[in-house]
Amino acid sequence: MKIGSKPYRTIWPVGDSAVEVIDQTKLPHEFKTVVLKTANDAAHAIKTMIVRGAPLIGATAAYGVALAMRADASDEALDRAHDMLAETRPTAINLRWALKRMCDRLRNHPRNERAALAWKEAAAIADEDVAVCRAIGEHGLKIIREASAKKNGAPLNILTHCNAGWLACVDWGTALAPIYMAHDAGIPLHVWVDETRPRNQGASLTAFELGGHGVSHTIIADNAGGHYMQAGRVDLCIVGTDRVTANGDVANKIGTYLKALAAKDNGVPFYVALPSSTIDWTLAAGHDIPIEERSPDELLKMTGRLPGGGLATVEIAAPGSPAANPGFDVTPARLVTGFITERGTCDASEKGLRSLFPK
Amino acid sequence: MKIGSKPYRTIWPVGDSAVEVIDQTKLPHEFKTVVLKTANDAAHAIKTMIVRGAPLIGATAAYGVALAMRADASDEALDRAHDMLAETRPTAINLRWALKRMCDRLRNHPRNERAALAWKEAAAIADEDVAVCRAIGEHGLKIIREASAKKNGAPLNILTHCNAGWLACVDWGTALAPIYMAHDAGIPLHVWVDETRPRNQGASLTAFELGGHGVSHTIIADNAGGHYMQAGRVDLCIVGTDRVTANGDVANKIGTYLKALAAKDNGVPFYVALPSSTIDWTLAAGHDIPIEERSPDELLKMTGRLPGGGLATVEIAAPGSPAANPGFDVTPARLVTGFITERGTCDASEKGLRSLFPK
Repeated sequence: MKIGSKPYRTIWPVGDSAVEVIDQTKLPHEFKTVVLKTANDAAHAIKTMIVRGAPLIGATAAYGVALAMRADASDEALDRAHDMLAETRPTAINLRWALKRMCDRLRNHPRNERAALAWKEAAAIADEDVAVCRAIGEHGLKIIREASAKKNGAPLNILTHCNAGWLACVDWGTALAPIYMAHDAGIPLHVWVDETRPRNQGASLTAFELGGHGVSHTIIADNAGGHYMQAGRVDLCIVGTDRVTANGDVANKIGTYLKALAAKDNGVPFYVALPSSTIDWTLAAGHDIPIEERSPDELLKMTGRLPGGGLATVEIAAPGSPAANPGFDVTPARLVTGFITERGTCDASEKGLRSLFPK
Repeated sequence: MKIGSKPYRTIWPVGDSAVEVIDQTKLPHEFKTVVLKTANDAAHAIKTMIVRGAPLIGATAAYGVALAMRADASDEALDRAHDMLAETRPTAINLRWALKRMCDRLRNHPRNERAALAWKEAAAIADEDVAVCRAIGEHGLKIIREASAKKNGAPLNILTHCNAGWLACVDWGTALAPIYMAHDAGIPLHVWVDETRPRNQGASLTAFELGGHGVSHTIIADNAGGHYMQAGRVDLCIVGTDRVTANGDVANKIGTYLKALAAKDNGVPFYVALPSSTIDWTLAAGHDIPIEERSPDELLKMTGRLPGGGLATVEIAAPGSPAANPGFDVTPARLVTGFITERGTCDASEKGLRSLFPK
């Protein structure tokens, strides 16, 4: 996608010994990029959320392994890189998927081939993510087209939570890919953007993306979506996910569950868009997914632009009050209308998932 | 209640021609009071949320009429004060209730008696609010005591949304009154405090109140309550309300509906605490309640303490992105376990309300 008039991915190689990423902690206030030269750099970028979003975390971890192989291509170094990168974020499964794919690819090759092979494999993971997201967009476009047909030319109102756009992936996005394609196809639509406390990925990243692409949108408090659904002002919800278990339960950014409840209560279709790398076939149900506990400071402090220019971080809550900050929640499959994957759409169930992804 | 060691109400007379209020827009960062000398001052204080909370808005409006009568006790001045104060906030019904009570009391009295009479009536409204909130606290205490008995000595976890504490009333609070009484009675409890975007009344006012009274609490993002309910970490929800319709539907701070849905989905009792002045017998159901649309700036800008001291307001969202800010939503009666009123508890239904408040 473009920033200004320049096309970008979220991660790209710099020569054959470093990768560059957009620093998403600075958006929407500043556009900066960061060069990652080591596996440590990659782990740090994931941990501090310079890069975030399940698919992008996977691609960054893959490049992290490739950077490790540049420095030391031993089995021990491969294991060390795997373990260090795996523990950066507990909830998103794409991270583990990408690391396993890299290790499986490299393990049985001689050391002197591993660095070049790893670089190619990481690039393949990134390229495939782009193709997968494009396919998700095309399948989701059909859903949007059908929903729009019932609106008699009025804009279709789509609600999304957090950021599952191109910034969360290598390009295109998961939940936002169908929206970009629908917009480009001339389908009138408007997106309700959940602010997504405490890190505000909606207000900062999704609004930034949609604005950049010219998609009509409105930022709302996370509290407001239920009200708009009751008022008939939401036609469709589409969100991303960090992990889907075999039965179709969905881990996604904290607060997703509340929106799914409201969608169910008001008869609003609730779709989850995902690449198949997000499916964790090893977990039977959502209650087994580890939920990341993040720093209370994310809730208690807020960074923004000062009126005179420059950024400041302010403390917003009552001094001395403790805070807790779980990063994700689990939406039960019963609340999900369907999954949008790179192979098409299916029911949110093991049967549905297996219809597209047989054993 | 106390701030430091000094007992306060949220509004109190200064001599017989002015009232003083705590400036709640400055909390929790600064403790300041504002003197209101005219009906205009009172209207401004309500509109800008120097005072907020349905019961306190009612008491402030009553004093606003009394201040108007000091300046001009004519019928025309009474009507003007009524109309100006009535239009400050559309959703809370206590405002209309207090204004009607003042006008009914004054209309048939000679002009020269009105100023003194109005002052007495406003003071009576304030005093009665304190007594009513104390009674709500006592009735709610029974619910907490019963719920606590099942916990085998472990702290009872109560979730609340927005601020329905003493700062929202003249003293004690509605939703928080039972919590203060339970704490004072030695019942172990812990309160999950919803941040309550966009104005953060939970993180700023409720946390400030609970901390001041020594009640154990944790601030969480509005997004997190559903997750804690799924995890069995919420035993009870208690919230306030700005208007209850005859059928038991509940208008309250935006986001309340989402928590009520999650409570229902997880079998967590969901109580609404209210003085009977919050019941709007003239509206059959919640969809008729006017919902206040507030400034998008409340969502897009955030005020807090700078590390070096002093306050700053920062813009937090993507530049140029529009925002929408509905102030309230409506929780259908079917999601409410019961009402806690000054006359006891009842079902969230017309029959329930009429059992305590017959025609």
